[in-house]
Amino acid sequence: MGTKIDTSPARGTRDVLPDEVELRDQARDVILATYRRFGYAHIETPALESMALLAGSQGGENAKLIYRILKRGKKLVLDKPGLTEDDVSDLGLRYDLTVPLARYYAQNHSQLPQPFKAIQVGSVWRAERPQKGRYRQFTQVDIDVLGEPGIVAEVDLLTATTAALSDLGLADFAVRINDRRILSALATTCGFDPSAHEAVFVALDKRDKVGWDGVATELVAAGHSADAVLALGARLDAMMSPDGGMQSDAGVDAGGAFATVAAIAATVAGQLGTTARVIFDPTLVRGMGYYTGTIFEIGVEGLPYSIAGGGRYDRMIGAMLGKDVPACGFSIGFERLILLLAERRQSGAQAPVARAGRVALLCPADGGGLPAAMQRAGELRHEGYRVSVLSARKKLGKQLSELEQHGFDGFVSLETGELRFFDEQGPGSGPDL
Amino acid sequence: MGTKIDTSPARGTRDVLPDEVELRDQARDVILATYRRFGYAHIETPALESMALLAGSQGGENAKLIYRILKRGKKLVLDKPGLTEDDVSDLGLRYDLTVPLARYYAQNHSQLPQPFKAIQVGSVWRAERPQKGRYRQFTQVDIDVLGEPGIVAEVDLLTATTAALSDLGLADFAVRINDRRILSALATTCGFDPSAHEAVFVALDKRDKVGWDGVATELVAAGHSADAVLALGARLDAMMSPDGGMQSDAGVDAGGAFATVAAIAATVAGQLGTTARVIFDPTLVRGMGYYTGTIFEIGVEGLPYSIAGGGRYDRMIGAMLGKDVPACGFSIGFERLILLLAERRQSGAQAPVARAGRVALLCPADGGGLPAAMQRAGELRHEGYRVSVLSARKKLGKQLSELEQHGFDGFVSLETGELRFFDEQGPGSGPDL
Repeated sequence: MGTKIDTSPARGTRDVLPDEVELRDQARDVILATYRRFGYAHIETPALESMALLAGSQGGENAKLIYRILKRGKKLVLDKPGLTEDDVSDLGLRYDLTVPLARYYAQNHSQLPQPFKAIQVGSVWRAERPQKGRYRQFTQVDIDVLGEPGIVAEVDLLTATTAALSDLGLADFAVRINDRRILSALATTCGFDPSAHEAVFVALDKRDKVGWDGVATELVAAGHSADAVLALGARLDAMMSPDGGMQSDAGVDAGGAFATVAAIAATVAGQLGTTARVIFDPTLVRGMGYYTGTIFEIGVEGLPYSIAGGGRYDRMIGAMLGKDVPACGFSIGFERLILLLAERRQSGAQAPVARAGRVALLCPADGGGLPAAMQRAGELRHEGYRVSVLSARKKLGKQLSELEQHGFDGFVSLETGELRFFDEQGPGSGPDL
Repeated sequence: MGTKIDTSPARGTRDVLPDEVELRDQARDVILATYRRFGYAHIETPALESMALLAGSQGGENAKLIYRILKRGKKLVLDKPGLTEDDVSDLGLRYDLTVPLARYYAQNHSQLPQPFKAIQVGSVWRAERPQKGRYRQFTQVDIDVLGEPGIVAEVDLLTATTAALSDLGLADFAVRINDRRILSALATTCGFDPSAHEAVFVALDKRDKVGWDGVATELVAAGHSADAVLALGARLDAMMSPDGGMQSDAGVDAGGAFATVAAIAATVAGQLGTTARVIFDPTLVRGMGYYTGTIFEIGVEGLPYSIAGGGRYDRMIGAMLGKDVPACGFSIGFERLILLLAERRQSGAQAPVARAGRVALLCPADGGGLPAAMQRAGELRHEGYRVSVLSARKKLGKQLSELEQHGFDGFVSLETGELRFFDEQGPGSGPDL
């Protein structure tokens, strides 16, 4: 036997314990079923992509966080001076599901319907600085509509995702919508140079955290014209009505983007229950460089971050396929969603995870009576219980108390074959029927 | 717009198209539900593990096929002579789910029930030479019982896995069982030196492909005693009865392993239907170096390879935790299973994938009528259909013919709101109800 070695998960990653996996599986199943009802088709792509593709995809900060794979065999030469990362590595782990989807579509489009509506559920990897609640491997759930230029894409994505959240028992969410073309037109009208737009948007993106005054201070300190900053503040103010209603700005020519956003907001609002809201938010930015039009997020009452976000990226596939294909997508931050569901269930704000009753069936440790035990277990499974056949320990009382502590609802004594619940009231949850 | 770039998936990996993903999801759901009924708990571990753990885990040939991750930031020094792979990489992608499970258990055992029964469904990566039907990323579905020394573990794993295969509609499978201790005792009795045992087992493992004569020729050519080889052949022959019954060899002292295998085989056979068989196969080897006792596989009539395999590995966790924990596991080769299910469904030997009726709801391309379209789509989804809201194209006939070709069952004209099926008989599959 070896000495004890370090068995903690790789830095920045984590092991998921059974209760959380059960919640994750249930949420995944609900979302997949909802998206399939909306006509989306589940696809899978490999975790590994070529570095040429990953690095060239306008992924913003995320593209800097790629885990690279070491070349193997004869392709790997380490005894050469002046090596670069590209010399020793040509593959990387995907950092989102949008870049792989664009590659998938460019590669397989002749076998796919037009437009193509895709679901993806998968792990992505980013080498972020470890911090509370952020991990280096995490799950995203994306839907995308490829090949549809009109607002039917945005309306469908937003309606499907709000339906999925409703099916998970969430009701108090707000949809925020903006358009990259409005942001650009606004910056131009206020007098910012086109080369300064990206910096203005990055500063504006911090408004949630630092307020408008913080944004203005940062912009002026960075050398932007104080007049332009003042104008931007005033126009944003005028656009944002207290009730989240749409206020377009007649002085800003955004090429029809105001009308587009208004039509999407009105149609989506018409599908929602009374506790959810749709808000036009001209300060919404989103980080990815590849967005070309509408952008949107869904937030939940009391949470400082969004749980889903997306937008239109009409030029990414063109860069791979050689011809433009309009595209629009929406991504659920699955880790944040699970955290939220777990908190709400723990606090009693939502029903606990429904699960079948768990039963232990104890048989002699020497394996005697095992055929009879398997037989009885089969009957109880048929009734809908989850049944573990286990060797009885000498100290039966201690074993039963451990089983109860680990979430078992009851046990079967092989002598009588009778199912007995730890709680005289019966199991907290009944069998799966 | 860029020029067209290479969009094929990374060498040795593949994209999965929607129809196959639907089959994969259904098979995954059936297996998970069956395993949960047997009291197994689904867990998740990260794809990345430390190289120290992966390389030190007796993974046989597979440990040589690890994809390594390049260190990042200051940890990566490339301008130094005499670099080794360990200098530039300290993490790797897992090549199986057993090594990560052992680490998970060593790390988290205080929060887990004893024994612990785990389900894992996940991707693993091996840098194999690309060949037909073998990919560098593939899915495994494992169950393991940790902390149970008795045959209740083997019986439970085998019964649960055969139940899962039955629930998938497979009936014509055969379970083959052997024990590493029988192999060792047999080799000793026949006069092979202990240092030669591993080579003998590797040769014996090829019996399926080259027959016993091929094995014997290889062993003699490699310098093993012809007497020992002859003795081995004779004893194997005597152990294998034509009907797969158990014939123990009184001259071979395998420390109770014959009785163990016989008890497992009899108990499992008692649970199976009449079309499935349990066979004692003294030539079964399995490649992994970490097995310590029973080993087993499940094959299907007419397939040259097994679709599930496993065994007892009582010492792996001890090497990590510092105290031995008995362990036994079973792994379904998910890719082979899916290939088999797809072939049988195509040939009509099994029912096709059940799925909800797919309906396209066409609305004007300008987005007019979208609220009414979303409303009508909601009604049809409520009835159980999968409904895609799509922009109508100018050439409606061509659009409808494409939709039918891509698996849609019917469409709704917004003018009449009526659902019409392409096949006058109605959809091949009804709505999800």
